Amino acid sequence: MKTLQELQSIITKSVEKLYFPNEPAQLYEPITYIMGLGGKRMRPALLLMACDLFNGDLEAAIPPALAIEVFHNFTLMHDDIMDNAPLRRGKATVHSKWNQNVGILSGDVMLVEAYKLIMRVPENLLATTLSVFNQTAVGVCEGQQFDMDFETRTNVTIEEYLNMIRLKTAVLLGGALKIGALLGGAKNGDADKLYSFGENLGIAFQLQDDILDVYGDPDKFGKQVGGDIISNKKTFLLLKATELADMTIQKELNYWLQLSEFDSVEKVSAITRIYNQLGIRTQAEIKMQEFADKAFNALDKIDTPEANKQYLRNFADGLLVREH
Amino acid sequence: MKTLQELQSIITKSVEKLYFPNEPAQLYEPITYIMGLGGKRMRPALLLMACDLFNGDLEAAIPPALAIEVFHNFTLMHDDIMDNAPLRRGKATVHSKWNQNVGILSGDVMLVEAYKLIMRVPENLLATTLSVFNQTAVGVCEGQQFDMDFETRTNVTIEEYLNMIRLKTAVLLGGALKIGALLGGAKNGDADKLYSFGENLGIAFQLQDDILDVYGDPDKFGKQVGGDIISNKKTFLLLKATELADMTIQKELNYWLQLSEFDSVEKVSAITRIYNQLGIRTQAEIKMQEFADKAFNALDKIDTPEANKQYLRNFADGLLVREH
Repeated sequence: MKTLQELQSIITKSVEKLYFPNEPAQLYEPITYIMGLGGKRMRPALLLMACDLFNGDLEAAIPPALAIEVFHNFTLMHDDIMDNAPLRRGKATVHSKWNQNVGILSGDVMLVEAYKLIMRVPENLLATTLSVFNQTAVGVCEGQQFDMDFETRTNVTIEEYLNMIRLKTAVLLGGALKIGALLGGAKNGDADKLYSFGENLGIAFQLQDDILDVYGDPDKFGKQVGGDIISNKKTFLLLKATELADMTIQKELNYWLQLSEFDSVEKVSAITRIYNQLGIRTQAEIKMQEFADKAFNALDKIDTPEANKQYLRNFADGLLVREH
Repeated sequence: MKTLQELQSIITKSVEKLYFPNEPAQLYEPITYIMGLGGKRMRPALLLMACDLFNGDLEAAIPPALAIEVFHNFTLMHDDIMDNAPLRRGKATVHSKWNQNVGILSGDVMLVEAYKLIMRVPENLLATTLSVFNQTAVGVCEGQQFDMDFETRTNVTIEEYLNMIRLKTAVLLGGALKIGALLGGAKNGDADKLYSFGENLGIAFQLQDDILDVYGDPDKFGKQVGGDIISNKKTFLLLKATELADMTIQKELNYWLQLSEFDSVEKVSAITRIYNQLGIRTQAEIKMQEFADKAFNALDKIDTPEANKQYLRNFADGLLVREH
């Protein structure tokens, strides 16, 4: 099987060759711009990897892999507007470089472009592939909406949170893997198992992200450590702390959550202290391991050579320990 | 063939039966809301009409007809954000009733829902139908971007304007008719001719709208008469006037275009006077007739019973004289 780097490099080269019309410039330039901001191209690489797992034709899997990457970047373009984010990967976001209307409309056409790319799968797989893609796309939108809803809700449960990250982050990994598997010639059952591998791995990965936000090495973690704490983000850690806290601790937690002006360092260390007191890190690691196990179990049951499965296991291991 | 009213009523009933999940409510309620605002359901009715023209199965044409209507309403939801419009059909727009983020995300999921509906065509027509739908969707986005670009550009040509209205308005009529024809079992050549009928009819219709904005009967015209003049909208009439005006008239035109504060009635009557002086109404009617002729010529060449074609001719006639 090809290495992850090889797959990523196939994607990078194919992204560079993506063609969009010159006019209207404000519609198409933002697409080339956001696609050119880089990133690890993990989702399309996973699609190729899944195809490779079943010895499929990688060349034929490139257009749907690009569809996944274009779709992902469409969601980033619109999410950045919704989040009022000035920067993306250190560069100006589309709506701040151009304007908001450009961000909306250019994103819209990107979604259509993603469908145009998906359509380039072999015709006998078109209906199945589209159906996976539609379901994935709906899921991602639902996840984003739940995420926004949670910002103003006070009674979010852990179950709801896990469902939100499943939709917002994990179904796209699952969808990419499933489409790749189908293109590679996997049986439906195996494609579903690979979907389950991706979905559970995605949830585990997001839980790890929640943990790293608090306990990550500031030099290795890509974002500001404590960012979730500062913004009162309802992560697994905060929700679990609320669940386990007695009245005294809950009062202290609420004190920090309700402060509108505070010293960031002080708030991060106060809430981290509460987490430590309640053993939240272990709880999160247990939950993360639970989803990782589900992912590995699904993988074990797939009918493909052991060496290929080992390759995906190594990939997943690499993902789940990335920046501890 | 079924009457337009019968087709519209099929659509209205089918729209009422469209099902969306309950949760997340802020994602799906706006879809039901905007779809429930009504409208003439002209685009999906045209799709059914095209299917009927070739004696196709109308039942099978309902899902793609709904796809066209959902797509159209998705563009309205996002256009209303971009245009900062508080009202749509006399009711609050989605972004003003909820908020802007709801309008963006709910619109996004509507586009995916439109694809889900399109997918319900018979599998042997899936690739062709999707390809027409994609091309249509891209065209509509391009048209909207050109329209926004023109607001700040000073050198828009009539050719560019005609291309903009073709993309923004006419390709969706053409696309709806073409998909309906394909579902009805039309030969590809006939489906293309019906596309051409729809596209040219759409341009003629928009030119008529430009004329009615100035010369329409205020009691019959749905919008404020003179609205285009008040907002300096670069319609065919204004662009033609700029083309034909001598220096004196151009100076007078510019005077009114550059005024930031003015009496609306006075501005409308001053610019209408200029139009009259230059014979702009006749020019616009000639251009409109040119596109109507193209539409009818395309229709004439279609291989289907004369009575069916007469039905479409009557429909087009009705459309083009609606509110004179």
